[in-house]
Amino acid sequence: MNKTRLEAFSDGVLAIIITIMVLEIKVPHGNELSNLKPLIPIFLSYLLSFIYLGIYWNNHHHMMHTLKNINGGILWANLHLLFWLSLIPFATAWNGENHFAPTTMMIYGVVLFMNGIAYFILQNLIIKSQGDNSLLKKAIGKDYKGKSSPILYLIAIIFANSIPIIAGIIYIFVALMWLVPDKRIERIINHQ
Amino acid sequence: MNKTRLEAFSDGVLAIIITIMVLEIKVPHGNELSNLKPLIPIFLSYLLSFIYLGIYWNNHHHMMHTLKNINGGILWANLHLLFWLSLIPFATAWNGENHFAPTTMMIYGVVLFMNGIAYFILQNLIIKSQGDNSLLKKAIGKDYKGKSSPILYLIAIIFANSIPIIAGIIYIFVALMWLVPDKRIERIINHQ
Amino acid sequence: MNKTRLEAFSDGVLAIIITIMVLEIKVPHGNELSNLKPLIPIFLSYLLSFIYLGIYWNNHHHMMHTLKNINGGILWANLHLLFWLSLIPFATAWNGENHFAPTTMMIYGVVLFMNGIAYFILQNLIIKSQGDNSLLKKAIGKDYKGKSSPILYLIAIIFANSIPIIAGIIYIFVALMWLVPDKRIERIINHQ
Amino acid sequence: MNKTRLEAFSDGVLAIIITIMVLEIKVPHGNELSNLKPLIPIFLSYLLSFIYLGIYWNNHHHMMHTLKNINGGILWANLHLLFWLSLIPFATAWNGENHFAPTTMMIYGVVLFMNGIAYFILQNLIIKSQGDNSLLKKAIGKDYKGKSSPILYLIAIIFANSIPIIAGIIYIFVALMWLVPDKRIERIINHQ
Repeated sequence: MNKTRLEAFSDGVLAIIITIMVLEIKVPHGNELSNLKPLIPIFLSYLLSFIYLGIYWNNHHHMMHTLKNINGGILWANLHLLFWLSLIPFATAWNGENHFAPTTMMIYGVVLFMNGIAYFILQNLIIKSQGDNSLLKKAIGKDYKGKSSPILYLIAIIFANSIPIIAGIIYIFVALMWLVPDKRIERIINHQ
Repeated sequence: MNKTRLEAFSDGVLAIIITIMVLEIKVPHGNELSNLKPLIPIFLSYLLSFIYLGIYWNNHHHMMHTLKNINGGILWANLHLLFWLSLIPFATAWNGENHFAPTTMMIYGVVLFMNGIAYFILQNLIIKSQGDNSLLKKAIGKDYKGKSSPILYLIAIIFANSIPIIAGIIYIFVALMWLVPDKRIERIINHQ
Repeated sequence: MNKTRLEAFSDGVLAIIITIMVLEIKVPHGNELSNLKPLIPIFLSYLLSFIYLGIYWNNHHHMMHTLKNINGGILWANLHLLFWLSLIPFATAWNGENHFAPTTMMIYGVVLFMNGIAYFILQNLIIKSQGDNSLLKKAIGKDYKGKSSPILYLIAIIFANSIPIIAGIIYIFVALMWLVPDKRIERIINHQ
Repeated sequence: MNKTRLEAFSDGVLAIIITIMVLEIKVPHGNELSNLKPLIPIFLSYLLSFIYLGIYWNNHHHMMHTLKNINGGILWANLHLLFWLSLIPFATAWNGENHFAPTTMMIYGVVLFMNGIAYFILQNLIIKSQGDNSLLKKAIGKDYKGKSSPILYLIAIIFANSIPIIAGIIYIFVALMWLVPDKRIERIINHQ
């Protein structure tokens, strides 16, 4: 099984997901600056999801870098991740159009949570396939980020209905936490 | 004729097909959880088609792996397959929006059937091009899955109008049957 | 300038163009077979354009195969071709939705004509860049197909308003004429 | 970090951006030539943005050609550029649908300006990463085009509200200025 084609397909899907989100920023009817005002939350929602998808693309790339052999499990775990990523544009648009309402904030968190879980499953399958000297296992180390993200999303989901601003802060915080590319993997690879 | 570009183009089309399906999950107007309820059949329909397209991508990849020389027939048989695959988003959305109504279940089956036939034609042309020692021919063996799928789709189409639930069960069953990647091809290739 | 990236970008754009056309086959409101009836001309229009785009992808691939060095002229001639190709979904949808009305048949022909011209320009720039022993020049020979297509489109455009059926026959005829991959290029390449 | 995948992902996003713009040219309801008339400004707006995206793709390609090592900064500067490029379809459609009204002309300029800045940041990070003998630094020389473009966009933004035609002339002028591929980089590379 060819890694290149798995990467190419994943890149294609990610490129499309990140770009079709922008179709949700519908062209307003008037031609005044004030017509853009209702688009501000939609724009902010797009911006955050763009960053999240950028993070996933980046980390996916690093993870795949450590991979040599692909098996059916990895292939479907990857498709499973792409499935949840493909729901981000929906969650983004619903959240933005409703000005970060409690329920839409919660669903946004649910989609992020499912993506975190899907990423975790894929990561574990790759580690398992690499055996005892797994390069990826060394690279992620204790995997603080990977383990804390789903927990943080869960907290956000719980708070979304009562104090949606907390959910918002968590989503931004997790994004910032990941924004730095995973130097651990780079370091380990360079030392090989 | 370069196999790489045929694969890249097919991957691109498949990535777009699998992703634009999600555009049919239209953002609801309200911002309550209850607003998501009408989307459940659309979501389930999307999920099933996502799996089908994942299967096609996966099997297409395995099949192409055995291929060395491309001729005009293979090229157009591949485009023919992409054509029917491109109709899956339409059949998926129509089926989901109508809560798996008899006619839409039937048309969904017709599109799956045509895809099965198109895949079968492509497979046969590749086998033919590989001559007596066709790697693909060895790999698929008796091709129970490939031969039974169109028959199962036909049964589903026949039952869709009277007992649509049978059609639904068949579509899920065929997907599960294929979900396991085609180990036969992997095995044969590894023994080369 | 790297040929691979020019091919990859062209493939990407072509894959998207061929796939977004299907978005114009809008899901009907009812769930009866009769609801599909108004979609028949849209479907036929999609089918024809799918074939045309398949032909362009195929011939583009063959043409690029003969290419070694890319210059700015070739790059922009290629983008120029992609521009006109990108208008095919519009012309296709307008034509299909209006059941092949005279004006929409004419505009469909105009877009095909412009694509033919853009292809011709790109081909000539490549030949020019290859000097006296141009592989592509040998391959296309007298280029009967390339030269007759724009003329046939012009005839179709002229007749579209009075006898639209003639335009339709011409569009189908030209597609069939090209459907056979350009064996000339393959032959010449194989003899190198 | 693999340059190939960064290029492939950027190409994918650019191919999608350039193609989804065409979705804004909505199929008119009538089937007369006169029904196309309201589409003329939308078409012209599409044409200009197509050229701009072609320029970005072209220059991005040349810039990446000089690149060897990718770091996190370059990766995110590239995503930052893709983010602003992804807003071009929105600005294009809004501008075209409003027949180049003052405000929409201004916003179009703002998006172009942000793209110019994002490109500038990316370019500087690449130069910085290449050290004292930066190939890209030599290639761009004094970078007259790169430095004057944002200034010209600013002038266009200022004039858009009072005399929108000046903004329009500037957008066309900048596009023409860049239309010639960056021979400087080609020259320097060839002399290596």
